[in-house]
Amino acid sequence: MRILIIGAAGMIGARLAEAIASAGTVAGRPVAAMLLADRAAPAVPGSLSGGLAAETLAADVADPAAARQLAAWRPDVVFHLAAVVSGEAEADFSKGYRVNVDATWALLEAFRLSGTAPRLVFASSLAVYGPPFPDVVPDDFALLPQSSYGAQKAIGEFLLSDFTRKGFVDGIGIRLPTIVVRPGAPNAAASGFLSGIIREPLRGVEAPLPVPRDVAAWIASPRIAVETLLHAAGLQSERIGSRRCLTGRGVSVTVGEMIEALSEVAGPAVAARIRPTEDPVVARIVRSWPRAFETAQARELGFPVDEGIRAIIEAHIAHEMGGRFVP
Amino acid sequence: MRILIIGAAGMIGARLAEAIASAGTVAGRPVAAMLLADRAAPAVPGSLSGGLAAETLAADVADPAAARQLAAWRPDVVFHLAAVVSGEAEADFSKGYRVNVDATWALLEAFRLSGTAPRLVFASSLAVYGPPFPDVVPDDFALLPQSSYGAQKAIGEFLLSDFTRKGFVDGIGIRLPTIVVRPGAPNAAASGFLSGIIREPLRGVEAPLPVPRDVAAWIASPRIAVETLLHAAGLQSERIGSRRCLTGRGVSVTVGEMIEALSEVAGPAVAARIRPTEDPVVARIVRSWPRAFETAQARELGFPVDEGIRAIIEAHIAHEMGGRFVP
Repeated sequence: MRILIIGAAGMIGARLAEAIASAGTVAGRPVAAMLLADRAAPAVPGSLSGGLAAETLAADVADPAAARQLAAWRPDVVFHLAAVVSGEAEADFSKGYRVNVDATWALLEAFRLSGTAPRLVFASSLAVYGPPFPDVVPDDFALLPQSSYGAQKAIGEFLLSDFTRKGFVDGIGIRLPTIVVRPGAPNAAASGFLSGIIREPLRGVEAPLPVPRDVAAWIASPRIAVETLLHAAGLQSERIGSRRCLTGRGVSVTVGEMIEALSEVAGPAVAARIRPTEDPVVARIVRSWPRAFETAQARELGFPVDEGIRAIIEAHIAHEMGGRFVP
Repeated sequence: MRILIIGAAGMIGARLAEAIASAGTVAGRPVAAMLLADRAAPAVPGSLSGGLAAETLAADVADPAAARQLAAWRPDVVFHLAAVVSGEAEADFSKGYRVNVDATWALLEAFRLSGTAPRLVFASSLAVYGPPFPDVVPDDFALLPQSSYGAQKAIGEFLLSDFTRKGFVDGIGIRLPTIVVRPGAPNAAASGFLSGIIREPLRGVEAPLPVPRDVAAWIASPRIAVETLLHAAGLQSERIGSRRCLTGRGVSVTVGEMIEALSEVAGPAVAARIRPTEDPVVARIVRSWPRAFETAQARELGFPVDEGIRAIIEAHIAHEMGGRFVP
């Protein structure tokens, strides 16, 4: 099988590439070749399973010639993860549409013209939704983006579904939950504190908490996000049905539950490094997000899910921190 | 006020131009100039209200230079009605995306770059929806297009809403009901028989009925469709709220009710010219359409609606047939 990852230099893209490289399979089928594309050529994964050839490519997919080059590589499975994130898409309107819409269009068109109809796994976002929300958002809830990023992802979903209906690609779009615990330095995303209040205290650093403890989020660990994409790659097309874009399974937790779990796993001294520093702007944004999703379709399709926030924290300590934290 | 109509050669576009030309106003404000654009230059309306200047233009709006030329004319209100219809968009995939998506994008971009933020009235379609439907489809029902035309109109709606949220245009999208009675020759649209079973018997010609009498549709007369667009042009932006695309008000009627109304208005001999000639393909398509819509938002915004199917038939006889039909 030939696997193409677009956006392979990103956090999820790099982990996905590592997971495929070390397993040497996707959905139980051996991978012969992997092409990792991003604006700048991504790194080749450290450990490559025997026989697996990995190439990297610097490509601007919004350029139709680059998209055609990727299609000409004739992948069986494409992971399309390349995106400008929400803050940047809001600040730079043209760049957001160029990367989040034009590139998706160019890619779909390149595969239509190639006649190869690969499985195309598209990373969409919960930002396609807007309030008012019910307590649990059903699978058929109307899309109502509140940001350019959300509008761009919604447009990508409609393109993917129409190209799939016509048989030009075999697409599936997954709205990934908020990733917790996101490794690395704090970033400017409004959701960043959800990772920060776990990651920073565990390494002995104080973390600001900009929202009240009753704020809830729909989260998934980086490992489950990668497994979600791999599961999507292996699903039989007939099983997916006509609704090709769905919300990924997650865990609904309040900030208070996250802090309690951190205290249980790592001790109250670690949890005490979380400093309430109310930020009304962040609180307003986060309160406009849904607290929980039904995800009936994803459950029926057998998508994986985290056990809970405690397991997410334990896995972060075990796999990201070598089993050690600052008590 | 300066009024631009894109797609002014179409059935609704031409009637809209006539209505504005003879009234000399839109939403109670005098119209100083009108620009009528279409692929081929449209006709200038027959009667022009005093002082109103009308120009026509042949323009391919999907061409960014043409879109910029239209924006440079600095309209206060834009009616964007240009579209490739559903059958053609399904048969010619590239043409559908070019006219229904690229042109909408080019137009929105041209207005963004012009900095003029006009009111932009976008004709969307019920084809953005897909089954299963409840008996009455609520305003917040999820979009699930079953055709490329529906996907393209949905994408147009998301673009319009995002450009409006950013203040680049002041957009409102209206999903027009099926137009009955559509004048002129029968066309190939699956919905064509809904007009044909009224129009053809009234002029003494037999009309095939491809579906059972219990099939229902959501319809509006050409006059109400034009008044709907004019009403949208005059609405205060704050009144519309954040949901900028809505379903237009219509009348839910069954085919049986249409035939009864025709018999009451024009006599049973006219209604007897309708010949049941079951067409399973058309019946399947039409049965996949919703029977009725809630349209709470459109009602609250004061949009007009037809009195009923009887009034629609009477108005057709009065205004399209000079008051005479073949008894």
